[in-house]
Amino acid sequence: MRVAFLGPVGTYGEQAALQLLELEALEHAELVPQPGIRAVILAVASGDCEAAVVPVENSVEGGVTACLDALWEHPELSIARALVLPIRHALLGSGSLEGVSEVLSHPQALAQCSQWLADHLPAALQLPTSSTAEAARMVAGSRFRAAVASLQAAQEHGLEVLAYPINDVPGNCTRFLLLRRGQRQQEGPLVSLAFSLHSNQPGALLEALACFARRELNMSRIESRPSKREMGEYIFFVDLDLSAEHTTPSALTEALAELQPLCEHLVLFGAYPLTSRT
Amino acid sequence: MRVAFLGPVGTYGEQAALQLLELEALEHAELVPQPGIRAVILAVASGDCEAAVVPVENSVEGGVTACLDALWEHPELSIARALVLPIRHALLGSGSLEGVSEVLSHPQALAQCSQWLADHLPAALQLPTSSTAEAARMVAGSRFRAAVASLQAAQEHGLEVLAYPINDVPGNCTRFLLLRRGQRQQEGPLVSLAFSLHSNQPGALLEALACFARRELNMSRIESRPSKREMGEYIFFVDLDLSAEHTTPSALTEALAELQPLCEHLVLFGAYPLTSRT
Repeated sequence: MRVAFLGPVGTYGEQAALQLLELEALEHAELVPQPGIRAVILAVASGDCEAAVVPVENSVEGGVTACLDALWEHPELSIARALVLPIRHALLGSGSLEGVSEVLSHPQALAQCSQWLADHLPAALQLPTSSTAEAARMVAGSRFRAAVASLQAAQEHGLEVLAYPINDVPGNCTRFLLLRRGQRQQEGPLVSLAFSLHSNQPGALLEALACFARRELNMSRIESRPSKREMGEYIFFVDLDLSAEHTTPSALTEALAELQPLCEHLVLFGAYPLTSRT
Repeated sequence: MRVAFLGPVGTYGEQAALQLLELEALEHAELVPQPGIRAVILAVASGDCEAAVVPVENSVEGGVTACLDALWEHPELSIARALVLPIRHALLGSGSLEGVSEVLSHPQALAQCSQWLADHLPAALQLPTSSTAEAARMVAGSRFRAAVASLQAAQEHGLEVLAYPINDVPGNCTRFLLLRRGQRQQEGPLVSLAFSLHSNQPGALLEALACFARRELNMSRIESRPSKREMGEYIFFVDLDLSAEHTTPSALTEALAELQPLCEHLVLFGAYPLTSRT
């Protein structure tokens, strides 16, 4: 079994993939690194891999738009499991903090440490890279370049930990999804779906959301993405948490039956379990 | 009067600023370039500039999260006017398309041309920069580097237009806001507001949105951002379009009065006019 993830080795995506595969008792799967989030999803959609692990939301930076857009384009994919992983960034380099004049990392990681970098390295140039692990690879051997990456990346690339943790929000965490192709028989308390509406009229979205609220289905997340056709036309991504005691087994089926006629497209990505690490 | 914008000169932000100032009859204002979107908003919030022009939403890439987050942190700012500008990217360089091995641009611009770049320059390395104009500045003088930027940036930096237009979606456009500090006496058909809710219970968001729907106020946009405190807690950005014939003048006041007690924080960014260029 081949599982795509955002490479190279040493990324948070690799950590998430290893843990998700352990939870699914698939430890012997082969991890296949990909150059970008879109490529990770295409790898499983095209059949090159049997599964994929992608970040979908960060507690500070919000939804990972490349992931949401690619999911909408591939309704044949389903979510098998979710994992919330704490993200604790380190500043990695060689020598001392004082000598650092360039800081490299993925733009999201730089954003998550922006206050710390402004306080401790106000004069350093910030250079974006395709991943945190790629940044660690690029700074190896330099005394004036440092990378924002994980402690694990320090080991992989033989770097020193110049500062840790450096993320501005202590509770920084990212939710990862394990995606599979054409399997929708999972079971779990979280339900993810996405829809576009027939109408852009007042109250159209409200009518759609009322399908859930009427049955006391807890909407734990709503995120809008542009339809890319015209400004003001959106796709809505909704997560429902069915773990509440009062939720009846038929409530979801009923809600979806009521929602369907309001939608131009409605995609159900599955009901799946969520594991949170601290 | 000093007006902050995302520099350097030649960005779409500069074009938007020039047009917004013309619409406000403020042509003689001094444009002050800033290194990032956050810095643009801080420039007006701190009092260093009297106004600022920022991108808030792109029709393909969605909400500009740095802008939304900074607006939430600065409820003293208000929106004076909005402008929708068509975004037509060009590939700028020296020599021919065949010689290009590196393409530089802002990550959003690279994303907006990703299909064109995959089709025409599949082997070229894509390097992110802080703005499209900065990319144009950086490729000047090189025969193997090209920039994704505006036609105007070609003139500013003496570059040739190697291909135009290259954005994947023909209707690609961006909405820019003119922000001012502490002035809320504007008038116009668009209303922008943001709120966080007291409760994360089923139906809490629905109850909030019902305040608008009950009065047939057309919600033209909803966007969620993480609270950054804990995962699953959100801030909602809502735009209302009051231009419909049936909208009564008191409907907004009533809706806000009903919404207020449901909110932990409620920020009204003003009622303002929108101009669309094609």
